[in-house]
Amino acid sequence: MSTPFHTSRLVEFSDTDMAGIMHFSAFFRYMEAAEHELLRSLGFSVYSEIDGMAISFPRVAASCQYHSPTRCEEVLDIDVTVHRVGTKSVTYEFQFSHDGRDVATGEMTSVCCRVEHGQPPVSIAIPDSVADKLRQLAAAS
Amino acid sequence: MSTPFHTSRLVEFSDTDMAGIMHFSAFFRYMEAAEHELLRSLGFSVYSEIDGMAISFPRVAASCQYHSPTRCEEVLDIDVTVHRVGTKSVTYEFQFSHDGRDVATGEMTSVCCRVEHGQPPVSIAIPDSVADKLRQLAAAS
Amino acid sequence: MSTPFHTSRLVEFSDTDMAGIMHFSAFFRYMEAAEHELLRSLGFSVYSEIDGMAISFPRVAASCQYHSPTRCEEVLDIDVTVHRVGTKSVTYEFQFSHDGRDVATGEMTSVCCRVEHGQPPVSIAIPDSVADKLRQLAAAS
Amino acid sequence: MSTPFHTSRLVEFSDTDMAGIMHFSAFFRYMEAAEHELLRSLGFSVYSEIDGMAISFPRVAASCQYHSPTRCEEVLDIDVTVHRVGTKSVTYEFQFSHDGRDVATGEMTSVCCRVEHGQPPVSIAIPDSVADKLRQLAAAS
Repeated sequence: MSTPFHTSRLVEFSDTDMAGIMHFSAFFRYMEAAEHELLRSLGFSVYSEIDGMAISFPRVAASCQYHSPTRCEEVLDIDVTVHRVGTKSVTYEFQFSHDGRDVATGEMTSVCCRVEHGQPPVSIAIPDSVADKLRQLAAAS
Repeated sequence: MSTPFHTSRLVEFSDTDMAGIMHFSAFFRYMEAAEHELLRSLGFSVYSEIDGMAISFPRVAASCQYHSPTRCEEVLDIDVTVHRVGTKSVTYEFQFSHDGRDVATGEMTSVCCRVEHGQPPVSIAIPDSVADKLRQLAAAS
Repeated sequence: MSTPFHTSRLVEFSDTDMAGIMHFSAFFRYMEAAEHELLRSLGFSVYSEIDGMAISFPRVAASCQYHSPTRCEEVLDIDVTVHRVGTKSVTYEFQFSHDGRDVATGEMTSVCCRVEHGQPPVSIAIPDSVADKLRQLAAAS
Repeated sequence: MSTPFHTSRLVEFSDTDMAGIMHFSAFFRYMEAAEHELLRSLGFSVYSEIDGMAISFPRVAASCQYHSPTRCEEVLDIDVTVHRVGTKSVTYEFQFSHDGRDVATGEMTSVCCRVEHGQPPVSIAIPDSVADKLRQLAAAS
């Protein structure tokens, strides 16, 4: 079984807490960075201009379950699966591991939005050019 | 309907992102700070010495659902409910709002652990003195 | 000797690192929050509309010297001095202490800028209404 | 002129703020990560066991001067110079640039300390094995 997207990341000192392990909130920043790296691998960006509109993907839900602690300078393997591509939203799953040990699993749902500065984001259908590539990743999961 | 614990917090500039709103990961730090404030209100602390043991509550699960964006210098009302007190774990629910507008809801489950430096945390039964007070809060929810 | 502006802040768990103390970078976020609280006390905000322009104060320099470590749940006293008010910039000094013990001293220089979205900030003279109040604080230092 | 140590890093979304640029405090985390990468390149680590003692390098001073803003997904070049190696401390200089444009310069002084859990760090002479390699980097600057 392969996952459609893989990245890795070294746990940094500033992401640890006084319990000596990576702080639970840092996993969410790592998930977001992996999501953006996946989007870049598809030729998109955090903020894209598509069909003449500024498009972004703010989150509507995020969750993480912690299975074992991870420490400073450990390299985390992060496998990203595109779980579901809806008309307006996409759900990713994240598997964190270190040296084959399960560290955490997470999930994030992002909604495609037209973004104008100073205005609340307005949800829109994911442009076909983006949705097609995300669905290919979902099919490969 | 009252909630058993309430706190509030100003959204700081450093918690915003380039979309002009509070970053989704900051909600998890705000939840943790509210959990710790609740523990202090019961006479406990992040790291307590109870019955001669160092006790802490690392998280096993955390989630958040985002309903509307919040901006710099808005004051967030945070209502905390003790949802479930198990033998070893406690689950909190968090309701974020601003001026009566629903901003986000979150949940965290923390497990009572004996903590020794350099060792992985070992889960233990919540000491009665702590569990009793948490159950009183749960009953008031 | 009094300082013109004082605030205080509890060191949070998420601001600690694996050395068991507050991470050195967190002092800079605390300084910024204190600066913004000072600006609010003068009737301004992080982003103000003054004389029909959006005004902000990005930093050109920041520094901190660390004298003793501070730990989770300690309350830091933060004394802010307006050290110098120039035509376009203002320099603040920050003294962090806990229970009378010297923890750290910091300095930040912020430049008054006109901010338009998507454009680089353009430095401008601090509007008189702001500069007058900052100079009063500087004189009181 | 070469610098003795170079690394690079992509500016992440979570490091930006509502002004649309990388938050000034994030530079300090980037400096620390570069310092630790330099130490690893010398065969050391954030927390080393040397001559039977746990050794770490807490900071006593940090500063940064900001020359031009940097934005999400820009790759920062970070050149690190070992400026001065004293008996107990080492001072690093950091040059941040993007595509040849000067972004920021920073400086950090770290003190060699023996670290025991629950005790304040105690400054000690940098072990010869570490100091020799740092001095070689300083000479190459």
